[in-house]
Amino acid sequence: MTTDLRVSGERLWASLSETARFGAIPGTERGMCRLTLSDEDIAVRHWFVAACREIGMAVTSDRIGTLFARREGSEPGLPPIAIGSHLDTQPTGGRFDGIYGVLAGLEVARTLHDAGIVTRHPIEVIDWTNEEGARFAPAMVASGVFAGVFSLDYALAQEDRDGVSLGEALARSGFAGEQDVGAHPLAAHFELHIEQGPVLEAEQLEIGVVSGVQGIRWFDVVVKGQTCHAGTTPMHLRRDALHAAARLAIAVDDIGRSDPGASLSTIGLFQAYPGSRNTAPGEVRLTVDLRHPDVAGLDRMEAALKNAIAALEASQNVAITLSPVWSSPPVTFDPGVLDAIGGATRRLSYSHRTMLSGAGHDSVYTARVAPTGMIFVPCENGISHNIAESITPADAARGANVLLQAVLDYDRATNI
Amino acid sequence: MTTDLRVSGERLWASLSETARFGAIPGTERGMCRLTLSDEDIAVRHWFVAACREIGMAVTSDRIGTLFARREGSEPGLPPIAIGSHLDTQPTGGRFDGIYGVLAGLEVARTLHDAGIVTRHPIEVIDWTNEEGARFAPAMVASGVFAGVFSLDYALAQEDRDGVSLGEALARSGFAGEQDVGAHPLAAHFELHIEQGPVLEAEQLEIGVVSGVQGIRWFDVVVKGQTCHAGTTPMHLRRDALHAAARLAIAVDDIGRSDPGASLSTIGLFQAYPGSRNTAPGEVRLTVDLRHPDVAGLDRMEAALKNAIAALEASQNVAITLSPVWSSPPVTFDPGVLDAIGGATRRLSYSHRTMLSGAGHDSVYTARVAPTGMIFVPCENGISHNIAESITPADAARGANVLLQAVLDYDRATNI
Repeated sequence: MTTDLRVSGERLWASLSETARFGAIPGTERGMCRLTLSDEDIAVRHWFVAACREIGMAVTSDRIGTLFARREGSEPGLPPIAIGSHLDTQPTGGRFDGIYGVLAGLEVARTLHDAGIVTRHPIEVIDWTNEEGARFAPAMVASGVFAGVFSLDYALAQEDRDGVSLGEALARSGFAGEQDVGAHPLAAHFELHIEQGPVLEAEQLEIGVVSGVQGIRWFDVVVKGQTCHAGTTPMHLRRDALHAAARLAIAVDDIGRSDPGASLSTIGLFQAYPGSRNTAPGEVRLTVDLRHPDVAGLDRMEAALKNAIAALEASQNVAITLSPVWSSPPVTFDPGVLDAIGGATRRLSYSHRTMLSGAGHDSVYTARVAPTGMIFVPCENGISHNIAESITPADAARGANVLLQAVLDYDRATNI
Repeated sequence: MTTDLRVSGERLWASLSETARFGAIPGTERGMCRLTLSDEDIAVRHWFVAACREIGMAVTSDRIGTLFARREGSEPGLPPIAIGSHLDTQPTGGRFDGIYGVLAGLEVARTLHDAGIVTRHPIEVIDWTNEEGARFAPAMVASGVFAGVFSLDYALAQEDRDGVSLGEALARSGFAGEQDVGAHPLAAHFELHIEQGPVLEAEQLEIGVVSGVQGIRWFDVVVKGQTCHAGTTPMHLRRDALHAAARLAIAVDDIGRSDPGASLSTIGLFQAYPGSRNTAPGEVRLTVDLRHPDVAGLDRMEAALKNAIAALEASQNVAITLSPVWSSPPVTFDPGVLDAIGGATRRLSYSHRTMLSGAGHDSVYTARVAPTGMIFVPCENGISHNIAESITPADAARGANVLLQAVLDYDRATNI
């Protein structure tokens, strides 16, 4: 019975440990620096290709260097069920973000190989190029080109800090393929990932069934008042930009708390100018990050932000400009993929909840062109993009077992 | 009748305009850069010495280069009544801060000279070295040594950004004198100054009778929470340092408004770290400036600040450290000097109010060793330490007439 099939948690953990040598930050316990198409990224790609070929998978790549490791199915007309994530990291990242999703895909393929199981659909394990966006902006660029969000020319022209383009780095790596990007139909895209947040740990749950990704709207805000001398200007004659901005910060926080479990708001950057101890600031620059699972919620939050700004302009005698700088619409994952993930989780008797992803992933873009869903496992203290990023071997194995069973269920249930 | 005596507003304005060439910032209408003992400061000192000698005054200097231009009185045993301020400026300052007080003293001497009036006490016009503290820290250093607050060795050892000490700059200038600093008893110290704040202008008053200088307490504050991802951390699990610091900013503002007309509070520096758009800040560093005319008021404000911090630590789950970095006790000026200033102002029928100085002046230190008082005139939009600093010729003349009449009254009334 394939429903009894389990991955090898030990082998998966060994792969995570073994590949961590490609980009390990010296002097740290688990820190990683494996920037896209760096020597370290090229080395782990060679390791991945060799491991896949060892179990009979064929590895191809497209013109942006995304790797597709394919295990053939029994019905050649069916498109592949993909298990994708990324092997690149932040400059001071960890060894699980993205990497875990790709190596768990490899572990699923190895488990099928060992058990001699042939699925109906081909199974493909995908390493998407440049998910992090740390070396080349924007993030998730290869899956974005795959989904038609960015053009290939735009993506390949992006340069790192040294002026090296993604195209040049790709040519040097030897991983540029012949396939047109996106000319590669997928039956589905499964992505297993660490949560990168504290919810599962706080609720002591083992698995997150990720039903979608929040929408995000980013704004720049400039609050302008009047600089004045701290010792000579009575409080009632001041137009203190800092004081007005502090009130705005509290309003933004209230907006984040307005729809518990759905709305999130953050002021990441906040600085007062000119920045002199005995001068009341004439200007504050800050950023606002609003997130919500649906467009109507985002609209309500943005309207509340604009109302708060208008009220502060009137009451605090300051001028406030609000400039949208970026937005990402909410994503809802595919019900069929989520059914497979949820069913597998329940059959495995893992404690779980349905949740949203707050961060961006390649699945945000694959959801535009293929049925997509994600699985989360807890990470220690919710920390990610940090050398302290950590998960347990037991959680790693549980996530990979959900992935294996969900893919098998989906393979049985789907005829496209 | 000496009570009918008036300065020449035209001559005073001409002196202000003429001396502004020593350090005028090219391309600005009124901007000045005349750093202590720079070539420009040396040039204006020579101009001042020549102008004083022209009307028979004797000019001496002490070991820190402060200039004393003396017009003898009729009773040789009496110490001089001083009119003091400073001729140095901020690097992008104006032509009135300090300069007006010295040149108005010269105008008083010229007026007495023209009228052939001999006062009982000698009259001395003083140019205190390095009031601004812009080239050599601390500010008001020469009057501070004069009052015994700083040692001469400490003051002369202070270096500018190029490593030149105040002592070296003084030796080069030729203005180092033989007098021990402070060995120079004063019957009184009068200082006429621009307000550097908006109160007189806002209340459409001509003269401020300055009864003292606020006490000041400076603090550094660090708010520590926990950095977290903007997209993955529910609001109720956050320990957002920015949000806690915003609430502290509002509490600090409330403290400034707690005792209207007396208390002032300012957060001049405020910055969130690490400063990433999609990361809730784990730390905010800010400064607090509290001012009040009396020690009990400062104590109440500091206690309120500590209470606000304790409440925020409890409610926001953050750690807040408060570090005192500097304080200056309140100064109350001499009733006799203030009587002379207030009486002269009323006799001249100038609209006026009693007020405190929010900024530091040489009079803060002379008040420790001699009866001291100050006179303010309005400045445009309350702006100072800025190339836009401006006063009207009529206000300049009014202030100098109050100074003249107050000095004459004090001379008549005082036997020491």
